[in-house]
Amino acid sequence: MSTKEEIGITVKKDENFSEWFSQVVAKARLADIRYGLQGFIVHREWGFKILRKIYELFEEEVEKNGHEPVLFPIAIPEKFFEKEKEHVEGFAPEVFWVTRAGNDDLEEPFALRPTSETAFYSMYSLWIRSWKDLPFKRYQSRICVYRYESQTRPFLRGREFLFFETHCAFRTHEEALKQVEEDMKILKKITEEKLFIPFIFFRRPKWDKFAGAQDTYAADSVMPDGRVSQIGSTHDLGQRFSKAFEVTFKDEDMKDKYVWITCFGPGIWRIMASIIAIHGDDKGLILPSSIAPYHCVIIPIYFKGKEKEVDEKAIEVQKILSEQGFSVAVDTNKEKTAGFKFNEWEMLGIPLRIEIGPKEVKDNTCVIVRRVDRNKNSVPVKNLVEEIEKELKINDKLLKKRSKRYHVITKAETFEDVKKLVGKGFIKAPFCSIDETAEKCAEKLQETTNLKVRGIPLEDEEKAKGKKCIICGKPAKYIVYLAKAY
Amino acid sequence: MSTKEEIGITVKKDENFSEWFSQVVAKARLADIRYGLQGFIVHREWGFKILRKIYELFEEEVEKNGHEPVLFPIAIPEKFFEKEKEHVEGFAPEVFWVTRAGNDDLEEPFALRPTSETAFYSMYSLWIRSWKDLPFKRYQSRICVYRYESQTRPFLRGREFLFFETHCAFRTHEEALKQVEEDMKILKKITEEKLFIPFIFFRRPKWDKFAGAQDTYAADSVMPDGRVSQIGSTHDLGQRFSKAFEVTFKDEDMKDKYVWITCFGPGIWRIMASIIAIHGDDKGLILPSSIAPYHCVIIPIYFKGKEKEVDEKAIEVQKILSEQGFSVAVDTNKEKTAGFKFNEWEMLGIPLRIEIGPKEVKDNTCVIVRRVDRNKNSVPVKNLVEEIEKELKINDKLLKKRSKRYHVITKAETFEDVKKLVGKGFIKAPFCSIDETAEKCAEKLQETTNLKVRGIPLEDEEKAKGKKCIICGKPAKYIVYLAKAY
Repeated sequence: MSTKEEIGITVKKDENFSEWFSQVVAKARLADIRYGLQGFIVHREWGFKILRKIYELFEEEVEKNGHEPVLFPIAIPEKFFEKEKEHVEGFAPEVFWVTRAGNDDLEEPFALRPTSETAFYSMYSLWIRSWKDLPFKRYQSRICVYRYESQTRPFLRGREFLFFETHCAFRTHEEALKQVEEDMKILKKITEEKLFIPFIFFRRPKWDKFAGAQDTYAADSVMPDGRVSQIGSTHDLGQRFSKAFEVTFKDEDMKDKYVWITCFGPGIWRIMASIIAIHGDDKGLILPSSIAPYHCVIIPIYFKGKEKEVDEKAIEVQKILSEQGFSVAVDTNKEKTAGFKFNEWEMLGIPLRIEIGPKEVKDNTCVIVRRVDRNKNSVPVKNLVEEIEKELKINDKLLKKRSKRYHVITKAETFEDVKKLVGKGFIKAPFCSIDETAEKCAEKLQETTNLKVRGIPLEDEEKAKGKKCIICGKPAKYIVYLAKAY
Repeated sequence: MSTKEEIGITVKKDENFSEWFSQVVAKARLADIRYGLQGFIVHREWGFKILRKIYELFEEEVEKNGHEPVLFPIAIPEKFFEKEKEHVEGFAPEVFWVTRAGNDDLEEPFALRPTSETAFYSMYSLWIRSWKDLPFKRYQSRICVYRYESQTRPFLRGREFLFFETHCAFRTHEEALKQVEEDMKILKKITEEKLFIPFIFFRRPKWDKFAGAQDTYAADSVMPDGRVSQIGSTHDLGQRFSKAFEVTFKDEDMKDKYVWITCFGPGIWRIMASIIAIHGDDKGLILPSSIAPYHCVIIPIYFKGKEKEVDEKAIEVQKILSEQGFSVAVDTNKEKTAGFKFNEWEMLGIPLRIEIGPKEVKDNTCVIVRRVDRNKNSVPVKNLVEEIEKELKINDKLLKKRSKRYHVITKAETFEDVKKLVGKGFIKAPFCSIDETAEKCAEKLQETTNLKVRGIPLEDEEKAKGKKCIICGKPAKYIVYLAKAY
């Protein structure tokens, strides 16, 4: 962070969101897009530390929910991949193939996993034998998947991107559907309650479900530019994959039966993108305390001849806070001004800054500055632990409150009304259906407006009695949500 | 663990080490080799949990040593790969190539990383600018690399295997060499002191160094079959890669200079293999407490009508221990006998077993059984925390002591003597040199005996004054270590 072009963001978030986002990604050392291969980015130091925290949150929750960790190969043999017809059709156009090794053409080329259903279930057919083995819940974390995308963007769409996936097998469809609900609760608990990203869970239209799924439930969050981003999804795979991969169990009645499968994937990258986009401001990132690599940064304010006493106090304060479980950085660099450092650390989004100068040393106090609203507060060192706890909570609370500002939902009754609202978050509108029969209407909508039917919300399903589909004019079955999407 | 073929190991470790190893891998749920693609294994639940602990140990240590985490793409563009001549020559025969995606032949095929020097240094040339940026220390963890190997074996050699790598850039060669020493200390601290794997660090012969390195320092550990396994290595890359990738910095004198680079990789898989092989016994795994997913397992001993009181006591004891930071499993399964469970948990290598039956409930005691020597000890619950702490230490101490039994070093003066010692650990013998000039002697040795020159030990370099090379008979420069190797 030492040369001029790395200092500060040069555009306003509200004026040029896209450029602002790119600058934050580069300048807060989240990722570097200059690797030289489209869609493959380098996850840099600060970005990696935040992503690791996000992963830890999900690992903890799914393990509490009974999932055991495993790690599968990146390679999907062609023969696995082709067992489930819809799955291969959906993924074939975007799969990378390894065809050579050393000087040999491989007899059996393999794909780089675009997702891991076929890998997991090929082994589940060996691992699951009896009803006593069920439910069988496994997950893998901190992996990448590979898709041959044409348009790529850090944390939004990549040819290589970070992944997390659970795969569960059950005795009955009811139990499977209950897991789908659990998955949604896990996503909500972390993303909404700890990361403050508002979203809506939808049942996706039949034409937009995961390739091979019976039903897809996905969460969309509105980005500052009014487009929505899918930040996670969970799928009821029914018995399609268990039939394709012969995943059976001997039930209590001694009959062999196919398991019911679900899979769940929070979008690690997309969640990161939402954290950047929704919480950030013109100074850079703002991080919720649950994933901030440091809760606070101490910046000693140096005056000539007083450097030593200020540094000593800073280290003392760091020690007090660390012992109470806070993660605290101290920036004792003597070549940069305090103001310069304020900017640097604000860019990184640390929730709280602690300023300690000679005055504070004398009074045995600290100045605490919140990242969200830059509120300043002088507190005695003896109260510091409680004050930091309090200020972190306030910072999070303000962040949560602000997070709602992009979460816009409007209503429309006609196609004309819809057109005026394009690109401004969600639009609720009557639609003939979300079954295959309505796919034509959805295509027409997308061709003319770039809007997609995101589905019907799970928590607030609205009947469309008496209303007409905005496209075909036939009686509408549902009020659906429309949006431009990432 | 419910069907017959999964119960118990059917061979003795000392009689058939290879089969014993395969059975432990499968039966302790470390890995599954039935994925259907040679050299690609599935890391199963128990194996993954242990490996995750090993990774955490290294992550903690390298971060303490000033390394920051990053994550690089799996893809190495052909153009990167070819910049360092020795490197590409060394790795070309074992690289997997992605050549197709969807229906397209890729314009620029890319390799799956066999290691990441070229990826890191292509970015270091952008990231490093001034002497103030140095030392520049980064690492990546929990990744896989890909090599087209012909013979594969879980945790010993794979086409896909777990990796950990640090890459550091320095202002001077001296600083770089100091890092190499630090790397060795880190490996020693974890592998020897926490995992109890005895090893020797060697300076490798010039013909056996890492492709592109100036010097390679590698650690070898003896396996129970007398072959040695390289469990980690650190490399002085000199300025070869910095020249190939133009990694320069402006020094304090304002001159542009090339950085000096080192890289370090503990062999995560190989360390796992050594833990299995060196510590395990005929009952299965035995884990050091530092990486055991549970420190102890409580097995309630049920008698008819007393199940409830025993379970309650077990839960109470678990709570007491958990609150003190111990990780404790409780096996309350009512369909398996206690003896069956003893075997299952011994297979998994948990350091301590706690038995609680009606007698223990009545007396408010527990029986603690150590995994290593099956020593039994009845202790009052009120002393449990100290006793568990003590017993864990004893278990580790015994493990450490036993670990030395395979670490055999013999001496030979002539080729005839050497032949008699093949396959029995290390053989010390006089050798003409470890420079390129001695490569012919090494080849001849390997052709006739399958022995490799592992190098000269760093801590105990012995002069060979007056002795003759066991192969060519010319004056020997060093006493080198020979061994059959994995």
